[in-house]
Amino acid sequence: MQISIVLYEGFTALDVAGPFDVLRYLPDAQVSFVSSTPGMVRGDVAPFALEAQDLDAAPDPQVLLVPGGYGTHAQLSDERLLAWLRRVHETTLWTTSVCTGSVLLGAAGILRGHPATSHWYELPSLELFGAEPRSERIVESGRIITCAGVSAGVDMALHLCGRIAGDTLAECVQLGIEYDPDPPYDSGSLAKASDDVTELVRAVFRQSYGPSYAEVAAAGTTAG
Amino acid sequence: MQISIVLYEGFTALDVAGPFDVLRYLPDAQVSFVSSTPGMVRGDVAPFALEAQDLDAAPDPQVLLVPGGYGTHAQLSDERLLAWLRRVHETTLWTTSVCTGSVLLGAAGILRGHPATSHWYELPSLELFGAEPRSERIVESGRIITCAGVSAGVDMALHLCGRIAGDTLAECVQLGIEYDPDPPYDSGSLAKASDDVTELVRAVFRQSYGPSYAEVAAAGTTAG
Repeated sequence: MQISIVLYEGFTALDVAGPFDVLRYLPDAQVSFVSSTPGMVRGDVAPFALEAQDLDAAPDPQVLLVPGGYGTHAQLSDERLLAWLRRVHETTLWTTSVCTGSVLLGAAGILRGHPATSHWYELPSLELFGAEPRSERIVESGRIITCAGVSAGVDMALHLCGRIAGDTLAECVQLGIEYDPDPPYDSGSLAKASDDVTELVRAVFRQSYGPSYAEVAAAGTTAG
Repeated sequence: MQISIVLYEGFTALDVAGPFDVLRYLPDAQVSFVSSTPGMVRGDVAPFALEAQDLDAAPDPQVLLVPGGYGTHAQLSDERLLAWLRRVHETTLWTTSVCTGSVLLGAAGILRGHPATSHWYELPSLELFGAEPRSERIVESGRIITCAGVSAGVDMALHLCGRIAGDTLAECVQLGIEYDPDPPYDSGSLAKASDDVTELVRAVFRQSYGPSYAEVAAAGTTAG
């Protein structure tokens, strides 16, 4: 079972490590980090960095996972990456994303006609790629699974684990990583967070991640 | 705010990345990965590896975090690491661990007289270090915070975020990482998992992690 996790400068650590520590337990799992910029690939804040092979150095994946991160938008002009995503998607068993990774699946044309989700900050943008944005934790459509922001990758990977190897293995992995979450706050979604908290986070994202793809597109249209 | 995360061969990826993606948002956060074996430090399954500085290369931490992993026991003979943990603990604001990282805090003598927790597989072992084992998600005692296995590091880091910088920041981080967990299974603790699942996971851990510290100690006593 070849699992390829795509890295790019500005990926978010937990988007990668959460699913990694679940999917590694799949039978005969072989996880590869792949990138169009092989070598050490820096995450979206120092000193987190992981070493990746070139996109074409690892076997074509049965499971493809694209994480999100502050660096997502910069990859939209990486035609080699987008072409690679399109190509390997033709033969994957499952094509998945965490957080804003779905923007890259969308840009590759993979989400057209599919319900899909993303980090709440980018969710409305998915419509521009012909997807149907859904405000859900995990969205499965055919063999495509997208999920919400950052921490949702753990839920998604457990779901995927169950789909691939059955409920018992997924339950074993859940116990192994003691995933019995008990957040000390209740502010983990737009529906639950206060308006003040939401505005603060939007401001941080606007600065660190940039405007959402939908906002960039709208501005481009206006400018044109 | 100097945050040092200790790496050693065989750390678990999510033990590190979960807290990393929370604590990075603390005001003036400077996160360092430190190790007694600096350079690329391999996690407990390939290809996950992170680059670390030498223990003494980074400034002494205000926040110390020790992750767990299959490699925990091998560190018990690393006297330099244990002495370093003891020394920096004297001046930390918070000394923390995720998962079996608490075994290393215990071995360093830091948990003596404190209630503490660990991954469920190692929890009884904490008694051998003079700690009071507690089957809880997060245990705070003085300026020491320990937490349960792997995924509990996210809960612990959010708790710590609130203690250091207040509830609003912690709530912002929770929304930022969209931490509104919704596990697709309900098998994340000993209390919830079936006996079959528990035995399967114990068997995997026995092989991958080894017997628990308490079992090793008991065998040593018997052998002696």
